Amino acid sequence: MAGMKIAVIGGTGPQGRGLSMRWAKAGVEVIVGSRVKERAEEVAAELSARVGSGAAPIVGMQNADAAAAAPEIVVLTVPYSAHVATLESIRGQLRGKILVDVTVPLAEGDPKRVAMPPEGSATEQARKLLGDDVRVVAALQNVSAKVLDEIDKRINCDVLVCGDDEDAKKRVRELVERLGVKTYDAGPAESARCVEHLTAVLIRLNLQKENPFKHASFRIWPEWEV
Amino acid sequence: MAGMKIAVIGGTGPQGRGLSMRWAKAGVEVIVGSRVKERAEEVAAELSARVGSGAAPIVGMQNADAAAAAPEIVVLTVPYSAHVATLESIRGQLRGKILVDVTVPLAEGDPKRVAMPPEGSATEQARKLLGDDVRVVAALQNVSAKVLDEIDKRINCDVLVCGDDEDAKKRVRELVERLGVKTYDAGPAESARCVEHLTAVLIRLNLQKENPFKHASFRIWPEWEV
Repeated sequence: MAGMKIAVIGGTGPQGRGLSMRWAKAGVEVIVGSRVKERAEEVAAELSARVGSGAAPIVGMQNADAAAAAPEIVVLTVPYSAHVATLESIRGQLRGKILVDVTVPLAEGDPKRVAMPPEGSATEQARKLLGDDVRVVAALQNVSAKVLDEIDKRINCDVLVCGDDEDAKKRVRELVERLGVKTYDAGPAESARCVEHLTAVLIRLNLQKENPFKHASFRIWPEWEV
Repeated sequence: MAGMKIAVIGGTGPQGRGLSMRWAKAGVEVIVGSRVKERAEEVAAELSARVGSGAAPIVGMQNADAAAAAPEIVVLTVPYSAHVATLESIRGQLRGKILVDVTVPLAEGDPKRVAMPPEGSATEQARKLLGDDVRVVAALQNVSAKVLDEIDKRINCDVLVCGDDEDAKKRVRELVERLGVKTYDAGPAESARCVEHLTAVLIRLNLQKENPFKHASFRIWPEWEV
């Protein structure tokens, strides 16, 4: 996996920026994708400056070009409102590759709730839209963008990875573990109904005055630690 | 809440036994309910012996009598296959009370998956079936029965509590916190779609050889602890 190169579609948004920087720091070349090429280039330059010269390169391209330039793995980090349109715009470039879907269908105007598509989750929606030519894996939905942005701190979250293709899931777990987090195989794409929803629950907890945190996450916890 | 008395319907099953003992140890009087009165009495005697004389009384009754004898809170811990039938059998005795639904619709023959009812979750199913006369709150679905049974050890799990009635949710959180666990308000009954599903994900992790645990749980994790 050394010398690896991935695309982060929607990589100019908060989640995408943090992930791009952290992967570059971990030695993974990143192509930041945006609808507008100039915007992608501008953000890539900014992120490159932040990670410094020890990191792998971060370059910017228009979304479809970014997806085309990624040999194996394309990460999708767009707001849910752009989920279907973005997938349709890069569909041809995803063929034969792995799509890592980070999208959560938060309800419009109420991020404490989800508004799941008829397929059950964003992940299953992507799976249906893309068909069997693309292996869809869901991951990283529960990690706060704010936490990701503080690139000198470790990530405070375990990562549940789900999808219907075992090999693809294994590859994505390797990629995610380069961020220094623990990953778990949460099962088939259907498990994304739970994992995506969990993001809304965490946002809800963050907004409650009674809780002494703003960017909560979760950890899987063994029975011998209480 | 001192001198409190609750019913645990299906209290002769693994989840119900552990919870009954732990609440009795915490000073809460427990009426263990079962379909068969003699079975309830037998298990109540056994659990009383295990918790010893320092605990609050545990008595056994037929399910409907147990629900009738609980002044405010009735806890439901039955396998999902008995969810609807049990609710129908105690419906009259629940009027004006709080039902704590611990049920998870695990898929028949595959506890690594859920088979949610059309309402979205067991909790929402109970809510629809019982109407507005009963305040339904979901809690404790993610705690392992095995962990509950080891009554001298602490519980390794945070508890997400959800429901549509804020007062009822507050009462249930107080009751659950007597078990020595941390509770969070996970929002409306709809959040049970996430919380119930999480149980199947945890069971899945428990069954994977790569994981060094058998009864995993989870903890909500603040951003400053990594």
